[in-house]
Amino acid sequence: MKVIQRNDVIYKFKAEMPAVERVNPGEIFKVITNDCFFQQVFREDQVLTEIDYSRLNPATGPIFVEGAEPGDLLKVKILSIEVATKGVAAVVPKEGVLGNKVSKPIIRVISINDGCCDFDGIKIQARPMIGVIGVAPAKEDGEWATDSPWKHGGNMDTTDICQGSTLYFPVRQEGALLALGDCHAVMGDGEVCFTGLEVPGEVILQVDVIKGKATTWPLLETHKATMIIASGDTLDHAIHEATNQAVDHLKHSLNLEWENAYMLASLSVDLKISQVVDPKKTVRASIPKSILSTEKLIRSI
Amino acid sequence: MKVIQRNDVIYKFKAEMPAVERVNPGEIFKVITNDCFFQQVFREDQVLTEIDYSRLNPATGPIFVEGAEPGDLLKVKILSIEVATKGVAAVVPKEGVLGNKVSKPIIRVISINDGCCDFDGIKIQARPMIGVIGVAPAKEDGEWATDSPWKHGGNMDTTDICQGSTLYFPVRQEGALLALGDCHAVMGDGEVCFTGLEVPGEVILQVDVIKGKATTWPLLETHKATMIIASGDTLDHAIHEATNQAVDHLKHSLNLEWENAYMLASLSVDLKISQVVDPKKTVRASIPKSILSTEKLIRSI
Repeated sequence: MKVIQRNDVIYKFKAEMPAVERVNPGEIFKVITNDCFFQQVFREDQVLTEIDYSRLNPATGPIFVEGAEPGDLLKVKILSIEVATKGVAAVVPKEGVLGNKVSKPIIRVISINDGCCDFDGIKIQARPMIGVIGVAPAKEDGEWATDSPWKHGGNMDTTDICQGSTLYFPVRQEGALLALGDCHAVMGDGEVCFTGLEVPGEVILQVDVIKGKATTWPLLETHKATMIIASGDTLDHAIHEATNQAVDHLKHSLNLEWENAYMLASLSVDLKISQVVDPKKTVRASIPKSILSTEKLIRSI
Repeated sequence: MKVIQRNDVIYKFKAEMPAVERVNPGEIFKVITNDCFFQQVFREDQVLTEIDYSRLNPATGPIFVEGAEPGDLLKVKILSIEVATKGVAAVVPKEGVLGNKVSKPIIRVISINDGCCDFDGIKIQARPMIGVIGVAPAKEDGEWATDSPWKHGGNMDTTDICQGSTLYFPVRQEGALLALGDCHAVMGDGEVCFTGLEVPGEVILQVDVIKGKATTWPLLETHKATMIIASGDTLDHAIHEATNQAVDHLKHSLNLEWENAYMLASLSVDLKISQVVDPKKTVRASIPKSILSTEKLIRSI
C-alpha cells in the first residue's frame, strides 16, 4: 500500500499543484496527516502567538488519480481514520461563536485512549473525522487557502466525513489532485469555539473515478443519506446553495416538477450545520437514502 | 382523562389569557390540535389566497397548570402524537429558502397510512411532531403571534418535539398557560419550503412543575440529549443564544471555568437547525447526556 507522508503538504488548493504521488482508480492507500497546527502546539503553557502561522492547516498531498479528468466525479471512500493518542483544543479571544467572551488564549492537551477523549475526567467518545479534504479547484475559482471550504472541498469541518463515509468531488483538473489533513478526534456540529480536538492522523482511502458526472459542490454518502456540502459567506448563503442543489437532485432523479421536488425536500431533507467559525460557513443538506439512493442520484447528474 | 378540544384556540401567546382547562402536576391529558390552516385547506385545487388568514396557526389552549408560578420550569412530557390520515403541504411564491423560484402556489394533499406518507408514490416514513407549543410570555416580552418562536416557545418547528421527548418551559405567568397546535406528520430539519406535512392531531401530554428553576429559552430532552431551543432574527443570532446557554449549562453543571466549558461545547455540543423559514429562525444546541444528564443540568440552574 502506498503511503503519502505528512511532510508533503500544501497550504493552498489551486489549479496547478505538483503531485507528490499517483494512484489508480480502485487503489487503496494511506495518507499521513498533520494536525491543524503542524504539531507545533503540544504543551498547555505554550504561547499561541509564537507559533509559525504560515504552517497552519497543512493538507497532505496532492495525490494524482489516474484517469480523473475535468467533468468527472472523484469518489473517495474513507476506509479508516486512526488518530494520535493526544490532541489539542484551544480558545482564543475573538474566535468562534462566543469569542468576545474569551479573555485569554487557553490550550488544552487532551489524551485519547480506547476511543475515549478525557477532558478533565469528562469522557467524550472519540468520533474521528477529517477537517480538510479537497481537490484542485477550477482555474476561474481562484486559489483557496486550506483553512477555507468551497466547491473544491477544503476545510469543510463536517463530522460525517468519517470512517465508512464516501466523498464525491467534482474534478476540475487532470488527476483531481486530492489533499487532506486537519483530523479531529471529536468535534460537535458547529465547531463553536473554532477548534475540534486537533490531532495528527493516518487515513486509509480508496479512490475511484465516475466519468462525466460533475457536481457543483462535494457530495457525502453516509450509511443513511447523501449530503450536499455547501459553503457561503453566511449560513443563509450556504443553506440556499445546499437546498437548491438538493431540490435539483430530487427533481432530476425522481422525475418531479421543480415545485414538487421543493416540497418533498421540505418534508424529507435535513439541513445540518457543519461549521460556523471558518472564513466561510458550511452546511449540508441530507437526502435520506430511503427516498433516493446515492447511486440513482449520481446516475441522474 | 381530560380532553381539550380544538375549538378552544389562541392565535397569540400573551401574558394574560383566559385558561380553557386546568390540570394538576402529574396529570395526563389529551389535546386535540388543528393543522396550521385550521383545516381550511383540503383540496389541491383550492385557491390559497381565499382562505381566512386570521385563522392561521391556531394553538389549542391555554391550559392552566396548578402550582406553576413565575420562576418555575414547566415540564411537558409528550406521551404520544396521533395525526390524521391526510395532511397538506404547499409552496407559495416568495416563501421558504427558494421562494424566488416558485412561479405559482401549489397545494398537495398527502395520505398518511400505517406510519407512511405517500408523496406521488414516494414513501416517507411519518415522524409526527408538534410545530407550535408554548406558554404565556413575560409581560415585558410582549405578545407573540403563534406563527413565531421565541423564549416562550411558540412556532419552534423542531423535529425532536416528538413522542418520547420532554419540553421544559420557563414559567412566566401563574399556571404557565400551555397551548399547542400545528402538528406535522413529517418535516425535514429546516422546513425549507415553509410547510411540513400539516395535519390535525391528538396529543397526549403529562405535565409537571419544577420549582424555582427558570431558564431563558425552552429546553428539550430526548433519549440522547438535552437541547436548548433558541430563536433569533438571523440564524447567527439564534446560534449565539443557544451556544451561550449551552456553555453556561456546562460551566455550572460540571463546575468548569467558562473557557473550558466553551472548549468542551466545541467538542461535544451539536448545533442543529430547526427551521429557517419563520419570522424568527430557530436552532437547538444539543448537549449529549453522555456528558451531562438532563437531571444534573436542571439541578444546577
